[in-house]
Amino acid sequence: MSGTTSARMEEDPLPCGMTGKRVLIVYAHQEPKSMNGSLKDAAVMELGNQGCQVTVSDLYAMNFEPRATKKDFEGPLNNSNFFNYGVEAHTAYKKGFLSSDVVEEQKKVREADLIIFQNQISQNFYSSPKSLLYCTRWSSKAMSVKFPLYWFSVPAIMKGWMDRVLCQGFAFDFPECFDRGFLQNKLALISFTTGGDAELYSKTGLSGDIKYILWPLQHGVLHFCGFKVLAPQISFAPEYTSEEKRKEMVASWASRLETIWKEKPINCTPSWYFE
Amino acid sequence: MSGTTSARMEEDPLPCGMTGKRVLIVYAHQEPKSMNGSLKDAAVMELGNQGCQVTVSDLYAMNFEPRATKKDFEGPLNNSNFFNYGVEAHTAYKKGFLSSDVVEEQKKVREADLIIFQNQISQNFYSSPKSLLYCTRWSSKAMSVKFPLYWFSVPAIMKGWMDRVLCQGFAFDFPECFDRGFLQNKLALISFTTGGDAELYSKTGLSGDIKYILWPLQHGVLHFCGFKVLAPQISFAPEYTSEEKRKEMVASWASRLETIWKEKPINCTPSWYFE
Repeated sequence: MSGTTSARMEEDPLPCGMTGKRVLIVYAHQEPKSMNGSLKDAAVMELGNQGCQVTVSDLYAMNFEPRATKKDFEGPLNNSNFFNYGVEAHTAYKKGFLSSDVVEEQKKVREADLIIFQNQISQNFYSSPKSLLYCTRWSSKAMSVKFPLYWFSVPAIMKGWMDRVLCQGFAFDFPECFDRGFLQNKLALISFTTGGDAELYSKTGLSGDIKYILWPLQHGVLHFCGFKVLAPQISFAPEYTSEEKRKEMVASWASRLETIWKEKPINCTPSWYFE
Repeated sequence: MSGTTSARMEEDPLPCGMTGKRVLIVYAHQEPKSMNGSLKDAAVMELGNQGCQVTVSDLYAMNFEPRATKKDFEGPLNNSNFFNYGVEAHTAYKKGFLSSDVVEEQKKVREADLIIFQNQISQNFYSSPKSLLYCTRWSSKAMSVKFPLYWFSVPAIMKGWMDRVLCQGFAFDFPECFDRGFLQNKLALISFTTGGDAELYSKTGLSGDIKYILWPLQHGVLHFCGFKVLAPQISFAPEYTSEEKRKEMVASWASRLETIWKEKPINCTPSWYFE
């Protein structure tokens, strides 16, 4: 499928025990030359060098459908008089008539040991003090701010991937959720860029602690499905730094991936986020 | 446009000073007979009875496009060698060549005194103890849980409305953001249903405080654009209660709307959410 690529690089010696690991990168950025594109490429390269099989779902290139509608079901509805998307998705999953694009993504998830979500997640703040920002009641920091593109969350195209792919029956059921979720033997990690620096995303910063933004995604989505959540990879403000610094960020990500399989998951409970 | 409806009911005497207020309801549910549909209908009726002009953007009926792509720009790109959606949207807004569906929504926002976002926002938990849920480390409550449809956030179709409609230049600029945002003379309110009861969305509940989920939406989106944010309208667990209770919830919403114009906004700072 367009937008889906696989890479396996077996020329180099493999790190101990890493052979055969599979990684899915769910990637949402329109511009291949963007920082997000570079981070995705670095992951494909590094993980490929380790002998991992890497699959990329390039959502914009795939023109992935974000809307949760009746079109997702290629068989009779459970209740055609009262449309309940969640119930219908559960039924369609069990009966095997979810739409093919959803089935294909579920297959990739099922096969993966690690899923990386790579995207631009939040306000594109930058803190180079070109202007004073007086626009908030509790902060008077000197800063300027640039377009808050995806509004403290993932872009709609990636939200739609989560809404449609991680359906009941496939990713969770009851009581098979949170630590019992069906995806409990998999790792997940959100890698993202921001427009602002770390200070802006601190407890006293204008945007509040970056962890506040991660709660719905890491706990509400990933942990709910059982994923062991690895610490997020945050690339702060790449648009407002030097080319050298951007290269350092990409190198730092690649370096982290060298030992990613040895990392322990975070404790994905409220204490990690709010204390 | 399909999915967009207006209502103005002028037969009844108007409440004092309410004449001529305009309300936009951004509505995301596939099923007109759903609780969300009923809440939307109740708002149209009550506000219409007040003499307000009510417009509904019924996103599923409109098949609203959630993806932020080059198709949103009906003129030359600012930089065709490096696509940056936020920069292009800002440019296209200033030059007047945003796509017509975005322009139409911006017109509705510009004309509105109050915007209500009506949708199913979070996990469809229910707490009728049909089964014990052992699936979490920090809670051992007896409960059962049902499909977490929109993952602690708005559905992708509504996220896409936010991503595309509230662009730089229209909703904010710098330093015109937060209390200085361009939409500072407007009220906004998120009205939503959950699957779980209030206890589940408490600080010690499995889902954490419901306010945690609202931070990215109310602060990161609405407050950022300048909106005065009214307290959210939360209809807990309508699917797992009686018809009588559901009617009470709808009546309670309609009753609140009778005096909505007298309400004071919340203090949309971290203290409201996390203390």
